[in-house]
Amino acid sequence: MDLPNVDPPNVRASSVSQTALSAASAQIAADVTIGHFCVIERDVVIGAGCRIGHHVVVHAGTRIGEGVRIDDHAVLGKQPMRAAASATTGGRTQPPAEIGHGCLIGTGAVLYAGCSVAERVLIADLATVREEVEIGERTIIGRGVAIENRCRIGARCKFETNAYLCAYSTVADDCFFAPGVLTSNDNYLGRDPARFDHFDGVTVERGGRLGVGAVALPGRIVRSEGVVAAAALLTGDAPHAHVVAGVPARPFREVPDTQRLD
Amino acid sequence: MDLPNVDPPNVRASSVSQTALSAASAQIAADVTIGHFCVIERDVVIGAGCRIGHHVVVHAGTRIGEGVRIDDHAVLGKQPMRAAASATTGGRTQPPAEIGHGCLIGTGAVLYAGCSVAERVLIADLATVREEVEIGERTIIGRGVAIENRCRIGARCKFETNAYLCAYSTVADDCFFAPGVLTSNDNYLGRDPARFDHFDGVTVERGGRLGVGAVALPGRIVRSEGVVAAAALLTGDAPHAHVVAGVPARPFREVPDTQRLD
Amino acid sequence: MDLPNVDPPNVRASSVSQTALSAASAQIAADVTIGHFCVIERDVVIGAGCRIGHHVVVHAGTRIGEGVRIDDHAVLGKQPMRAAASATTGGRTQPPAEIGHGCLIGTGAVLYAGCSVAERVLIADLATVREEVEIGERTIIGRGVAIENRCRIGARCKFETNAYLCAYSTVADDCFFAPGVLTSNDNYLGRDPARFDHFDGVTVERGGRLGVGAVALPGRIVRSEGVVAAAALLTGDAPHAHVVAGVPARPFREVPDTQRLD
Repeated sequence: MDLPNVDPPNVRASSVSQTALSAASAQIAADVTIGHFCVIERDVVIGAGCRIGHHVVVHAGTRIGEGVRIDDHAVLGKQPMRAAASATTGGRTQPPAEIGHGCLIGTGAVLYAGCSVAERVLIADLATVREEVEIGERTIIGRGVAIENRCRIGARCKFETNAYLCAYSTVADDCFFAPGVLTSNDNYLGRDPARFDHFDGVTVERGGRLGVGAVALPGRIVRSEGVVAAAALLTGDAPHAHVVAGVPARPFREVPDTQRLD
Repeated sequence: MDLPNVDPPNVRASSVSQTALSAASAQIAADVTIGHFCVIERDVVIGAGCRIGHHVVVHAGTRIGEGVRIDDHAVLGKQPMRAAASATTGGRTQPPAEIGHGCLIGTGAVLYAGCSVAERVLIADLATVREEVEIGERTIIGRGVAIENRCRIGARCKFETNAYLCAYSTVADDCFFAPGVLTSNDNYLGRDPARFDHFDGVTVERGGRLGVGAVALPGRIVRSEGVVAAAALLTGDAPHAHVVAGVPARPFREVPDTQRLD
Repeated sequence: MDLPNVDPPNVRASSVSQTALSAASAQIAADVTIGHFCVIERDVVIGAGCRIGHHVVVHAGTRIGEGVRIDDHAVLGKQPMRAAASATTGGRTQPPAEIGHGCLIGTGAVLYAGCSVAERVLIADLATVREEVEIGERTIIGRGVAIENRCRIGARCKFETNAYLCAYSTVADDCFFAPGVLTSNDNYLGRDPARFDHFDGVTVERGGRLGVGAVALPGRIVRSEGVVAAAALLTGDAPHAHVVAGVPARPFREVPDTQRLD
């Protein structure tokens, strides 16, 4: 027997795979290629030259620039979930996600509605980018990286595999997070109603860097060109152009000239 | 040409997307919404008011309560794989997964057959919950969290992003795992057949908490209201209502009254 | 209305689900079972007895041995993405992925083109294996593990949940990575053009082991049967059959005879 009679969303005949479902109100440039079993919801805009893999979901209203590659199983423009017990996720509907020209979005990556991604950003496999996040141009969000809600990230940053940026954090241009860097914004460890008034992410000023496995406590600041060494625990601030190391982190040495931005 | 002649699973005409495939024996409440390209296997039960995204897979027999939100690409009720060299995964077929009323299941989350999730639990994007696991009501399993097999978790706990709970662990009510907490159950590091008799997860008593990047060794206990500080290595037990800190962790101070449960 | 007229890839009538799309040039053994909404691209080879879940994507040319289980949403044979700012990912097309007999591939796992996986390997849920990687027989790549590009891994190794192996690393037979082990290959933290000449992964000789949360710096070596203790920071080399512990790691004791391979 055939599949039952349905009234499916419009499916474009030219460039879109016949097994993908695209809402009639979606605006998809003529040369876009779309893999099988994708879902393109209403009012989505997809620019010229985009290449979209299989099983990709693009939620309502998402705006995708030109020349973007989106790999299999990526989800763009998801609306936040709100747990009964969540402390930092609000209940309002987020505006559509915006993805700049020339971005690469990896397999299984999840980008929320309310995120804004500049041009030529790479968001690798299984990375997640939450709502109310801005990411500057040419930044790399590595495999498995989680960028929580309400973060602002500059241009030309690199977050390596499985680095973690907690909510309410600010990262300036040219910063570097090595693999597995951890951050936190809650000095109260989930207890005491006072915590709701004191969530405080980390701040990394221009050119700041954190080594593999470094941990930064809530509200701490990595000053411009400062470095937190591998496996260090940042309990104070990391000063300008100096390396701090150890648990807890102590001053270690100056950053070598060859690793300075200017 | 058309798709070939097939004998597909029954597809409900009312609320289920016509591109989703639902076994005839599935029991799906009339007001359930199901996205595109979902697979609902045999004997699944889905309660009233559930909202299911795109590309969701619900394996045979899974029971889903009322008012559950399940996001794109989630997989519910997967049967375990058994590696030739696995030490802790048995070969038997697990009973269907059970998901309570009002739960939220994130994008790409994987819940195994043999898990039981109480009401109003949040399991966030890319989290995994293995077989023979019980999770109490209103607990939050954060983004990327892995709950291994044979764990019991109480109510109102919070596991923040990428926290890891090893097999054979017990976590009581009102516990807190900060981002990136690690645990282990194997003192033999995968060597020596004696390890098969000594797997020993961690125990966290009521209200116990672990800070960002804390590491707990096999068999260690966080006593009620005890705290393991950020980046600490728990080599002994954390006493009742005290903070331990450092590598290895040493007594540090009492838990402040404002952060006590009672 | 019906789905529009299309010219879909060939769909095999016998063992392949009618909702899966299989290129005419794919060679699929007669007894293979394939779930719904899968995509099998051109020139793929799938051996006898394979069981493939729902929403699986197998990219062009991938060769899969006999008796392989591939779970829902896995992606095999993905071509690398190349970011404008990537330091270690080349631009060339990779040869097809090769998966040996009897492997298990987990839900949401991502295997790149240019990887070669021997027989009876387990690659668990949400793990990623990049291009130019070889994995020896019976090795276990745990849940969420990331194996970066240009790594060589021996037989009978075990990488537990969320362990991370950086690019340019070599791991011999019978090695063990506990949960959350971190590695790095960049002593320059993403700065200084000299780094491009000095990427240097970790080396783990036969039977080497790293404990939960251990961190190994670029270029460091774990000698045969050596052990890096839990939460240790490896800044030098770990000597043969000795345990090193602490931050930074110092000699601690000999490995017990019961945990030696020979």
